Amino acid sequence: MKIIVLKFGGTSVGSVERIRKVAKIIRSYSIKYKVIVLSSAMSGTTNKLINMSKKISKNFADHEYDTLVSAGEQISCSLLAGQLLAHGIKSKSWMAWQIPILTEGKHKYSRIKYINKTKVLKFLKIGGIPIIAGFQGVDKDLNITTIGRGGSDSSAIMVAKFFKAERCVIYTDVEGVYTTDPNKLNSAKKIKNISYEEMLEMASLGSKVMQPQSIQDARLNRINIEVKSSFVKKKGTLITKRKNIINNKIITGISSTNNDAKVTLLGVKDRPGIAASIFKPLSHNSINVDMVVQNISSDGKETDLTFTIKSYDLNKTKKIINNNKKISFKKMIFDKNVSKVSIIGVGMVTTPGVTFRMFQALAKKNINIQVISTSEIKISVLIKRANVVKAIKSLHTEFDLDK
Amino acid sequence: MKIIVLKFGGTSVGSVERIRKVAKIIRSYSIKYKVIVLSSAMSGTTNKLINMSKKISKNFADHEYDTLVSAGEQISCSLLAGQLLAHGIKSKSWMAWQIPILTEGKHKYSRIKYINKTKVLKFLKIGGIPIIAGFQGVDKDLNITTIGRGGSDSSAIMVAKFFKAERCVIYTDVEGVYTTDPNKLNSAKKIKNISYEEMLEMASLGSKVMQPQSIQDARLNRINIEVKSSFVKKKGTLITKRKNIINNKIITGISSTNNDAKVTLLGVKDRPGIAASIFKPLSHNSINVDMVVQNISSDGKETDLTFTIKSYDLNKTKKIINNNKKISFKKMIFDKNVSKVSIIGVGMVTTPGVTFRMFQALAKKNINIQVISTSEIKISVLIKRANVVKAIKSLHTEFDLDK
Repeated sequence: MKIIVLKFGGTSVGSVERIRKVAKIIRSYSIKYKVIVLSSAMSGTTNKLINMSKKISKNFADHEYDTLVSAGEQISCSLLAGQLLAHGIKSKSWMAWQIPILTEGKHKYSRIKYINKTKVLKFLKIGGIPIIAGFQGVDKDLNITTIGRGGSDSSAIMVAKFFKAERCVIYTDVEGVYTTDPNKLNSAKKIKNISYEEMLEMASLGSKVMQPQSIQDARLNRINIEVKSSFVKKKGTLITKRKNIINNKIITGISSTNNDAKVTLLGVKDRPGIAASIFKPLSHNSINVDMVVQNISSDGKETDLTFTIKSYDLNKTKKIINNNKKISFKKMIFDKNVSKVSIIGVGMVTTPGVTFRMFQALAKKNINIQVISTSEIKISVLIKRANVVKAIKSLHTEFDLDK
Repeated sequence: MKIIVLKFGGTSVGSVERIRKVAKIIRSYSIKYKVIVLSSAMSGTTNKLINMSKKISKNFADHEYDTLVSAGEQISCSLLAGQLLAHGIKSKSWMAWQIPILTEGKHKYSRIKYINKTKVLKFLKIGGIPIIAGFQGVDKDLNITTIGRGGSDSSAIMVAKFFKAERCVIYTDVEGVYTTDPNKLNSAKKIKNISYEEMLEMASLGSKVMQPQSIQDARLNRINIEVKSSFVKKKGTLITKRKNIINNKIITGISSTNNDAKVTLLGVKDRPGIAASIFKPLSHNSINVDMVVQNISSDGKETDLTFTIKSYDLNKTKKIINNNKKISFKKMIFDKNVSKVSIIGVGMVTTPGVTFRMFQALAKKNINIQVISTSEIKISVLIKRANVVKAIKSLHTEFDLDK
């Protein structure tokens, strides 16, 4: 019994007409596979519910938040099952507690721990198509939990894992993963195959096709993911392990961010452990420091330190640093008009000179690099936000992605 | 530990502002009582969900319908619990399956069979206010069920029964039960006390304050119900057993219908069992025959038969009668412009002459009575719909209800 998991995002089930369309897609798989469907809430529903909770209170209780928002998937899943049944297809909606999908951890940010397969397997065996509510779970005390926004992707991956599915197809409103944001560069191309590792870098760097956590879950469990559109009938992007990929390109994709801020501390009194003294309180306040550069102090007494954070953390960061009695510095300066541009590709591991080619391509366009950070499969540079499109364009050409 | 059950209807929790208001009402009871709250869905929600299901299919599966619409109470209850928590009041929402509230019978029309008190009692004991979803239940196989429209009233009565509550307060958008429809008669008065039996007649005859089934449940379990408004702070109407009521009025209220139709079969071949031959197939098709009059046939061979049904059943009724091979008649005629006006009161049991006074009052206004039916505590007459307001007005005065 070959099992396939199909996951439909909010826009894919955003209206009764869309649900009708999705039912047809599900049907087309049911000839070849035993199909398990996961659905998000209809687009707009979750935000509407969250807004109501905010009107009640800014500190709306997490426990009730989970009960509230999970009503969204209850609506979409019962409508979708009802649609399939109306077509004469055996189907049934399943809320997380009915399966159950057990979670652990805090409300709003729970993690799926265990999925009881018994009832769903029985239903699959008699030819049924289960429609499972994404995003939600239940804890051991029968409280409704949710697994964070975009959590339906994680639900789908975990269902694919527990049911040993051959593939997990993520249906969304984009056709797949692109070499770079098509809104920024016309010549962006759909990627046929991408490794989990590259996709992780693409996702966490701002290509919002899938949540990083769900890609990480898929990587750990070796689940093949196909990302494709429920609006047009076209092949999507396959996210799989590196060795499944035959690719002659060094760089797979280019991503950019648009909510970074640069903080520079000038004249920091230099002593061992000074960086830790600066970053520890930020970390304790859930502020994520991304790129860091420390200039070598010429006299060994003072140094300049530059780092980037998310721009929405800027005010909090300023306050924490100004109140930090363990450090002393002359001046703190900020820049919100910066962006991080990254080239990503497993190919760079075995190819020398990628860094050089990147810097040269940017230099040719007079783009100044402010901070650099690298990993095994990624090189990121911080540049002026105004230069982002120009930078992407030149890198896209430099690394043969236009073709 | 004195327990009180408070039930809030859809308009009472129809917006975030309303929910804030309702939280204050709940709070005011919590000084004197252990409070259990039942809530309907926010007004409009259930209809919106039902309309979506209808857009999917006219025969939307009952099982999925129950899952779909019960999302409405999930939303209102979590918002209400969140509101109380925001005010620092210990509260928690409970879906039917979390308690559980076990039901039996068909989807869409299930009946509450058993309520497990353990968890809710424990919560009450530590000072918590449970907010329980009305209208929904769960069957033994963990399917979500619902107990019919207006079922939140039934949920409240059953919770009051199982928890041995001192009283069940039904908060709604009217101030209580009136002697007659205030929209039809300005001088209609709020009734202070009414017996279950009278209320049942009022409810099933068209005073839509509460569902007849829930009044019947309250009657069987001797639960005092108070119906009052969540919009204005005024005493409501107490529905209780007859002997609790001190009332010097013969008639408690007057009700009228506006969706009756009269069917007359002329020249029916009279033979024993003819009435059964006519009504049996109607009953089998769920058509409810209300009032019936059969004229005595002068020659013993033919008779005229008149009966009333709901006007929405008229077409079906015509078809069934025309296809009925067991009967023969000369002509079938219909009248949709009729209404049933009823006077209700336990006082009439011990008071002679009530029927006479009713007929005389109507005769004085030149209102012709077409059909009559009576029960122990009710007299109903079928009249021209155009005369309804005039009839109510004269009866309201005749039986001293204006004061």
